[in-house]
Amino acid sequence: MHFTWKTGVGAAMLLASLAVHAGTEEGVASYYADSLDGNPTASGEPYDKGAMTAAHRTLPFGTEVKVTNLSNQKEVVVRINDRGPHAKSRIIDVSGAAAKKLELMDAGTAKVRLDYED
Amino acid sequence: MHFTWKTGVGAAMLLASLAVHAGTEEGVASYYADSLDGNPTASGEPYDKGAMTAAHRTLPFGTEVKVTNLSNQKEVVVRINDRGPHAKSRIIDVSGAAAKKLELMDAGTAKVRLDYED
Repeated sequence: MHFTWKTGVGAAMLLASLAVHAGTEEGVASYYADSLDGNPTASGEPYDKGAMTAAHRTLPFGTEVKVTNLSNQKEVVVRINDRGPHAKSRIIDVSGAAAKKLELMDAGTAKVRLDYED
Repeated sequence: MHFTWKTGVGAAMLLASLAVHAGTEEGVASYYADSLDGNPTASGEPYDKGAMTAAHRTLPFGTEVKVTNLSNQKEVVVRINDRGPHAKSRIIDVSGAAAKKLELMDAGTAKVRLDYED
C-alpha cells in the first residue's frame, strides 16, 4: 500500500476516534449532597451515597475512572452513572463514599486528576 | 367548633404541608456549561442554553422561581426542568441565558435569593 496523504489523514482520524474517551483530565471535583440519596440519576439508577459512582458530563455510563485528589494523593475508582456537573468550573461530582475515601468532604472541593480508558 | 390543642396541631400541620414548596432560599448559584446544550435534563427536555430554565434539587418540575443576584439586584424568572446541583454548597444552576440576565457569567457563581410558590 502506498502511504499517501489520504491514508495518513484516515489513520489519524481513526486513532482520534478510538482515543476520544481515553485519557487524563485535571480540574475540580465536588461531591453529592446527602439529600440526593435515592434520587434517580441520569442513567436511571438511584443515587446511592454508599456506592463508588460519579457524574461526568460526557463519559459513557459505566466508564471506570480513577480519581486522584492532588492535594493528598488519595485515589478511588468510580463508575460513571450520572451526568453533571453543570458548572464548567468542575469536572466531576463524586458520591459521598468516594468523597470520604478522597478526604475531600471537609473542603467540599478538591483539585483532582481523572484517568480513564473507554 | 371548640378550638382544642388537637385542632391547633392539625391546622398547623395542614398549613405546613400547603407551604412546603413556597418560600425563599438564599445560597450560591452557578450556571450550565455551554457544552451541555442539547443534552437531556432530568425532566426529559433537552437542555436549551437560550431558555429560562434551572436545576434545583427538590422543587417540582415546572415550578417558576424568581432568582435575584444579591450582588447587583438583577432578577430573572426561571422554570425548573432539571435536578441538581449535586454539591450542597450551591442551591441552583441556571441556564446560560438566565446567567446572562443575572450578569453572573464572569464571576461564574453568585449569591442569590430564590422566591417561589408551588
